[in-house]
Amino acid sequence: MNVNHVNAISRATKEILTNHFGLEVNQEKPSAGTGSIPSNNVAVILGIKGELTGQIIATFSGETAKKLVGTMMGGMEIQELDEMGWSAVQEFGNWVAGTTATELSKEACTIDVTTPIVNEGDSKFHSKLPFVTIPFTTGIGEVRVHIAVKEE
Amino acid sequence: MNVNHVNAISRATKEILTNHFGLEVNQEKPSAGTGSIPSNNVAVILGIKGELTGQIIATFSGETAKKLVGTMMGGMEIQELDEMGWSAVQEFGNWVAGTTATELSKEACTIDVTTPIVNEGDSKFHSKLPFVTIPFTTGIGEVRVHIAVKEE
Repeated sequence: MNVNHVNAISRATKEILTNHFGLEVNQEKPSAGTGSIPSNNVAVILGIKGELTGQIIATFSGETAKKLVGTMMGGMEIQELDEMGWSAVQEFGNWVAGTTATELSKEACTIDVTTPIVNEGDSKFHSKLPFVTIPFTTGIGEVRVHIAVKEE
Repeated sequence: MNVNHVNAISRATKEILTNHFGLEVNQEKPSAGTGSIPSNNVAVILGIKGELTGQIIATFSGETAKKLVGTMMGGMEIQELDEMGWSAVQEFGNWVAGTTATELSKEACTIDVTTPIVNEGDSKFHSKLPFVTIPFTTGIGEVRVHIAVKEE
C-alpha cells in the first residue's frame, strides 16, 4: 500500500474528528496485518472504487458510538442508539468519505466512495488484501481506521 | 428502487449459484424493509458505485459458507474455514460482483463494484437506505441477498 495514500486517509479521519467533533486526537502507531479485522462492536464500512479498490473501515465501541452521535447532536447524552442514532453514525461515515476523497486527490489519486453502511455486533472482517490499521485515541474513546485497498 | 435493477441483481446471484455451483435454486418472495439487516453469521459485502451507490450484501449461515467453499474446492468437506476458506468466500463475492455488473448493464445501468469484504459473526447492518431482500433456497442452505442502493 502506498504510504502517501495511507497518510492521506489518516489525515482525513483526524481532520473530521478534530474539526467536526472538536476532539483532541492522538494518532498512535499504525500496524500492518493480514487475515481478520475485529469489528470492536461498531464498524462503519466505506467501499472504495476508482484508482483504488477495497474498503476503509472505522471501528469503535458502542460507548464511543453513542458519544460520537451525542456530539453530532450538539452535546446530548445518548442512552441508546435508535434508528436516527444509527443514521448519524452512517453520516459520520459520509463525512469521512468526502474528506478522504479530497485528501487522496491532493496525492493525485482519484477515488469514489460508496454510501457507507454500519455494522453492529461482535464480528470480524476477513479480507484477502493486506490492511493497515491506524488507531486514534480521543476524549470519547478509541477510533481505529482499517485500510484494505489495492491499486486498480 | 427500480424493479428492473432488483431483478438484474437477483438474476446475477441465481446465475452464479446455478451455473458455478450446480445448485438447484428457488427464489422466494422478496421483501422490502428499512432499519437493520441481520448478518446471519456470514455476510459478503459488495460496495456499489456508479449510476447506483450503496451495498449489496449476501448473507448465509456458517454451515452454508462451508458447503459453498467445499463446492468451490471440487466437493471437499470443509470442517472449519481457515484463511484460504475465507478467501474463497470473498471470491464468491467477486463472482457475484462481476455478474451483477453485467446483468445491470443489460438494463442500461453502469456500476462499479468494489473488491468484496466478508463479515463473520452475529451482527447486523444499519442503513439509511431502504433495502430489498431476496431469499434463495438451495441444497446447501438459504442465501439472502440484501440490496441497499440508490440512484446517483
